[in-house]
Amino acid sequence: MPIIHAYTNISEVEKEAKKDYIDRHSPFISAPGLVEKGVPFSVTVTMGNEYTHPADDDHYIAQISLFNNETLLSTVNLTPQMVSHQKSNIQVSFSLVTNKKMKLTAVGYCTKHGSWTNDAIVVGVQ
Amino acid sequence: MPIIHAYTNISEVEKEAKKDYIDRHSPFISAPGLVEKGVPFSVTVTMGNEYTHPADDDHYIAQISLFNNETLLSTVNLTPQMVSHQKSNIQVSFSLVTNKKMKLTAVGYCTKHGSWTNDAIVVGVQ
Amino acid sequence: MPIIHAYTNISEVEKEAKKDYIDRHSPFISAPGLVEKGVPFSVTVTMGNEYTHPADDDHYIAQISLFNNETLLSTVNLTPQMVSHQKSNIQVSFSLVTNKKMKLTAVGYCTKHGSWTNDAIVVGVQ
Amino acid sequence: MPIIHAYTNISEVEKEAKKDYIDRHSPFISAPGLVEKGVPFSVTVTMGNEYTHPADDDHYIAQISLFNNETLLSTVNLTPQMVSHQKSNIQVSFSLVTNKKMKLTAVGYCTKHGSWTNDAIVVGVQ
Repeated sequence: MPIIHAYTNISEVEKEAKKDYIDRHSPFISAPGLVEKGVPFSVTVTMGNEYTHPADDDHYIAQISLFNNETLLSTVNLTPQMVSHQKSNIQVSFSLVTNKKMKLTAVGYCTKHGSWTNDAIVVGVQ
Repeated sequence: MPIIHAYTNISEVEKEAKKDYIDRHSPFISAPGLVEKGVPFSVTVTMGNEYTHPADDDHYIAQISLFNNETLLSTVNLTPQMVSHQKSNIQVSFSLVTNKKMKLTAVGYCTKHGSWTNDAIVVGVQ
Repeated sequence: MPIIHAYTNISEVEKEAKKDYIDRHSPFISAPGLVEKGVPFSVTVTMGNEYTHPADDDHYIAQISLFNNETLLSTVNLTPQMVSHQKSNIQVSFSLVTNKKMKLTAVGYCTKHGSWTNDAIVVGVQ
Repeated sequence: MPIIHAYTNISEVEKEAKKDYIDRHSPFISAPGLVEKGVPFSVTVTMGNEYTHPADDDHYIAQISLFNNETLLSTVNLTPQMVSHQKSNIQVSFSLVTNKKMKLTAVGYCTKHGSWTNDAIVVGVQ
């Protein structure tokens, strides 16, 4: 099984290079904590929080998958042309609809440093 | 070659069912007309404008590809689970960066009614 | 709409560079002309017939989609790492099953030269 | 992180239903044990070995990813239309080229039962 790197809280990491390495490869999910049943809401996955990732032809974020528990919601294939080969925080947003609590996770893939995930985000339903 | 249906202005279409059919299958791109070189901006692709599309297991919007001229920027694979099988306007946003004028087009794919595109959107650079 | 280049019979093309350009970007489908209802059979899509395509980080075959009429059967995302960055004929095979006549087309995508298709291949059912 | 189910040798599983469940969701990689540097060879991923998987609109094998160590080589998006909604062993083959030892793994995804992997297959180079 390919390794899926888990996020480590970078405030607990000492070396600057390692903070950068972990942060820029990790997917961060932004979603409302509570939504209305059946009403569309937006979920954003951003690669990196404090640090940006290269978009070189041989080193870029090539894929983001969004899961609800074990269910794959979407796989996005990305290219360095999207951001004109400029270092940045790759960001994709989706409009979702739900009728019950979701537990969202994302897996981001870097062509040099493999697959990365982060803690699940819970979206409650009122 | 698989047919790629082109958008027809639905205000010129008489039958309600046909308006609905064309509108709900067409990708609509929302993007700024003018951006700053090297500064990230958001582009949104929405399937359907005035009408929503089903998200049934055998009938849903399964893929959206975003192109700049002939260059593929991203392919997004979608599922009916994203919207809990509810009729809706499927929507995906991307953060892009550019250094020169872009000409964006999207191709959306419905599992029952094939591939659809719309007029290109120009993003100028100041 | 992004252009989808159609194949031109290269025996009718004079310039060697143009023959190469057309051939190496075109998807060639290999499939049985007649299959048994409900019995799996193999379909192969090969990019290029007489000429190979580069697999450089900034220039490679990144996607192949297989259609039956207007129905998308599969989209394959490819990388230059698959062939260790060596010029080659990218090849993907699928096991299909059908109960009625198919009309198969493929669209291949090169990161530098866009989308390419070829004449449809008919698979009859006995 | 979404769970990635690991294969269990079904000869050690007692219940028939569980054997079936594990087997039909697991990707089996077929590849030569030894290849020549720079010479294309074929690798086949088959979902299920002794048992077939449904291809219903709400329950099918929707994605197969092939990795070499942590490097993603290809992601294949599949549809139940590929096999005309018939139970079968989904199968995809790729032409690969390598210059050094590969360690291949596949992750298959079922729309109802999530992500599954199997033991890595080593391809040596002579």
